[in-house]
Amino acid sequence: MSQQDLDFETSVFEKEYITVADRQEAIVRGGRHLFGVLPQAFEGVGQIGVIGWGPQGSAQAQNLRDSLGGAARVVVGLRADSSSREQARAAGFTEEDGTLGEVLDVVAASDMVILLISDAAMAKLYPEVFAALKPGATLGLSHGFLLGHLTQSNEDFPADVDVIAVCPKGMGASVRALYLQGAEVNGAGINASFAVHQDVTGQATDRALGWSVALGAPYTFQTTLQSEYLSDISGERAILLGAVHGVVESLYRRYHDLGMTAEEAFRRSAESVTGPISRIISKDGIDGVYRHLDEDGQRIFAEAYSVAYPVGVELIEEIYDEVRSGNELRSVVLAGERLEHRPMGKIDQSTMWRVGQKVRADRVENEIPLDPFTAGVFCGVMMAQIDVLIARGHPYSEIANESVIEAVDSLNPYMHARGVAYMVDNCSITARLGARKWAPRFDYLLTQQAFPAIDGDEPVDTTPFEAFADHPIHQVLRVCAGLRPSVDIFVA
Amino acid sequence: MSQQDLDFETSVFEKEYITVADRQEAIVRGGRHLFGVLPQAFEGVGQIGVIGWGPQGSAQAQNLRDSLGGAARVVVGLRADSSSREQARAAGFTEEDGTLGEVLDVVAASDMVILLISDAAMAKLYPEVFAALKPGATLGLSHGFLLGHLTQSNEDFPADVDVIAVCPKGMGASVRALYLQGAEVNGAGINASFAVHQDVTGQATDRALGWSVALGAPYTFQTTLQSEYLSDISGERAILLGAVHGVVESLYRRYHDLGMTAEEAFRRSAESVTGPISRIISKDGIDGVYRHLDEDGQRIFAEAYSVAYPVGVELIEEIYDEVRSGNELRSVVLAGERLEHRPMGKIDQSTMWRVGQKVRADRVENEIPLDPFTAGVFCGVMMAQIDVLIARGHPYSEIANESVIEAVDSLNPYMHARGVAYMVDNCSITARLGARKWAPRFDYLLTQQAFPAIDGDEPVDTTPFEAFADHPIHQVLRVCAGLRPSVDIFVA
Repeated sequence: MSQQDLDFETSVFEKEYITVADRQEAIVRGGRHLFGVLPQAFEGVGQIGVIGWGPQGSAQAQNLRDSLGGAARVVVGLRADSSSREQARAAGFTEEDGTLGEVLDVVAASDMVILLISDAAMAKLYPEVFAALKPGATLGLSHGFLLGHLTQSNEDFPADVDVIAVCPKGMGASVRALYLQGAEVNGAGINASFAVHQDVTGQATDRALGWSVALGAPYTFQTTLQSEYLSDISGERAILLGAVHGVVESLYRRYHDLGMTAEEAFRRSAESVTGPISRIISKDGIDGVYRHLDEDGQRIFAEAYSVAYPVGVELIEEIYDEVRSGNELRSVVLAGERLEHRPMGKIDQSTMWRVGQKVRADRVENEIPLDPFTAGVFCGVMMAQIDVLIARGHPYSEIANESVIEAVDSLNPYMHARGVAYMVDNCSITARLGARKWAPRFDYLLTQQAFPAIDGDEPVDTTPFEAFADHPIHQVLRVCAGLRPSVDIFVA
Repeated sequence: MSQQDLDFETSVFEKEYITVADRQEAIVRGGRHLFGVLPQAFEGVGQIGVIGWGPQGSAQAQNLRDSLGGAARVVVGLRADSSSREQARAAGFTEEDGTLGEVLDVVAASDMVILLISDAAMAKLYPEVFAALKPGATLGLSHGFLLGHLTQSNEDFPADVDVIAVCPKGMGASVRALYLQGAEVNGAGINASFAVHQDVTGQATDRALGWSVALGAPYTFQTTLQSEYLSDISGERAILLGAVHGVVESLYRRYHDLGMTAEEAFRRSAESVTGPISRIISKDGIDGVYRHLDEDGQRIFAEAYSVAYPVGVELIEEIYDEVRSGNELRSVVLAGERLEHRPMGKIDQSTMWRVGQKVRADRVENEIPLDPFTAGVFCGVMMAQIDVLIARGHPYSEIANESVIEAVDSLNPYMHARGVAYMVDNCSITARLGARKWAPRFDYLLTQQAFPAIDGDEPVDTTPFEAFADHPIHQVLRVCAGLRPSVDIFVA
């Protein structure tokens, strides 16, 4: 199935079509007023087992329990010796009332099993999980890693279960925090994609949509597990983590070399991206950043955009090829073997990020500059990701959420509070390895190719910027923005 | 066959055993006095076809012709429309006398075919070459790429030919230039490894040794095609190109940030590595660098070594895993497809390398500082490569040549003349892609982990340096140094 042909039928929710660029995409709008129909969506599901208590596991288990209000029992499955048991108990999942149990016991007793363990654990544990699943059960995933892993191992999901995915386009912390905000502002939440990979019960679509609505997704769009996998793993290596890190490192160094103090260089690079630039994109789109600049700023933006965009395309095409070929996943598996003997070090103790701690401590939020050069570089790389994903046939909703909305509404605000390098040190192993691998590539190529083009004697070729004003993504982002209330993003 | 069990029989040359660390390795010492026995080594070979006119092709074709003195005819094979035909003619290979022809014609007419075309061309052309080979012919390679490519494609060499490799441990330019020096200083030349992968004629070993002696190799050691492939592709990604680039970039930035002028920072980083540090290692070994330092310098060296060594091990183990898994080769193939639409840009126009041009122009050779911190970092990463290759079971001769001798006697002198970034821009596609991929990783990890450990409040853990003084590689390098005359390295 080509992504352009995606559509679905639901007997529980109201499907609507949004017009994004030259296409129609079928979606379901969320909201707390729909919690009343969740029992219908989960018909036949007496128990939902949520396996794992990482950021996604803890957020999803609590949101599901709170939304379902007892229509299905939500039970958390953890290893007996898991250090997370205490936290799960504190959140109200206990052995005493049967809502906290051993992983395989919970799998065997649940009608729907949502697997939210780490990729490494997934790769080890899946055969036992598959064997323990009830026939006719629903297996739920929140990203495509397992599909990639099975494909590479020439294996497949069990034939007698539904396989669905609901993939929130934000960190677990945001999934819970925005859900809580949603109690006051109906519709606050993190958008999610859904995919129906196997439907043996005929109920897979409504269960997936119910799951997404219960998580608090303002809107839910359709994708395939393969498309989700490719855009998710590529996106975190590119603009969501790897590219943003490389971009701000290269800019910080450039500004410092041009004579700015370390503090000012940090403000004009990292602070500008995670603060004003992300906020403007969130409210007014990528083109909104350009409109916020004065004439001189717009000229600088256009030139910076034009030299950064080709670097972005070159590297994001490489990332996408590496992910699609399976190389990237094989690298993660090989790294996992090395990590058993030597843990990863932290990356946030370099000079730049120590300067950053100080700058954040002294921060006056509305004095952070909207630097036009920084904005041009960041938006150029962001648009490169968008164009690579468009060329590869991804749905617009997926592209907008994976390239823009997840960045400016979930990850960048977290980075704004803690620093980009800290975020890299504290994300999933798969994402962390990818960010450490690709950030330096963006940094080097910007430094070696983009900046010399700005600094050279030749006038800058602004051809890439010519496609900016009329780019279809601007309309897509406006449609997406209309599907949820504007809320302030929470950072723990 | 484990590399430790390597041994060979030759009826033409004198085999001797060298004692390297705890092992004996069988080698053949070269020299111009052996050219007289080459007709015996090439018995049954009336024509040697050298396919390709890159740096290795042009060097090897000329060395072979000059050494053989007509004992076998050396014919160069190039595409009819090859832009290199003119250069081959200028070197005396002409259509008129039958020493320059079309690739497949030359293959079909030769008793021994040495394939020295680019990896990309190799991947495309090998089925036609295999089909055109005479039964009983000898196929010669100068690195293991084709083996890696065939393994990945589940294919194999034709069963009815000998497959041998002679792999000079230096650039093509050095292979020719040192051969010419050898006319005055018998024994000047570039060491080479040889491998016998298939021996249907029973003459494969002597043909390989004859080829190596004819190239001017001061000494020839044995390896397997697989071992050569792994160490060659890993080595160029590590200390030979990728690591040395990342090391000097990170040091230049560090010194500049600490307040040195850009010129002084360049002298103490890149200039120090490619000049005095390489020269001392070439003459006195890696431990010679340490001995050249005063007490204060030795303390600085030991600390810098100790923080750089673990970074080197971490990344070189990753490189080795990526090469062995086939990921690295798949990446090269994928990149080749993208390069058809978008050529690689140059990397030597960044600020650092523009500073470098100026520094080189004003250079006073004996005023280049031997910086102890730079020396410690560079030697730490070099030793990391040595230890990773030892742990993976490579022969000591291969390790010493691939990690040390090729660097200090061939590549670094070229970089000293032209700059590290220029060298990266001008090497083979496979090496260039690898260097661009891995250099930034070394830079980042040194900046994120090694330098903060130096700059922190805690005393530096110098455990890694404890193994330095008694490391077996020092003895190995002294044995290798004894196998050839000390010559000044030529740089075009």
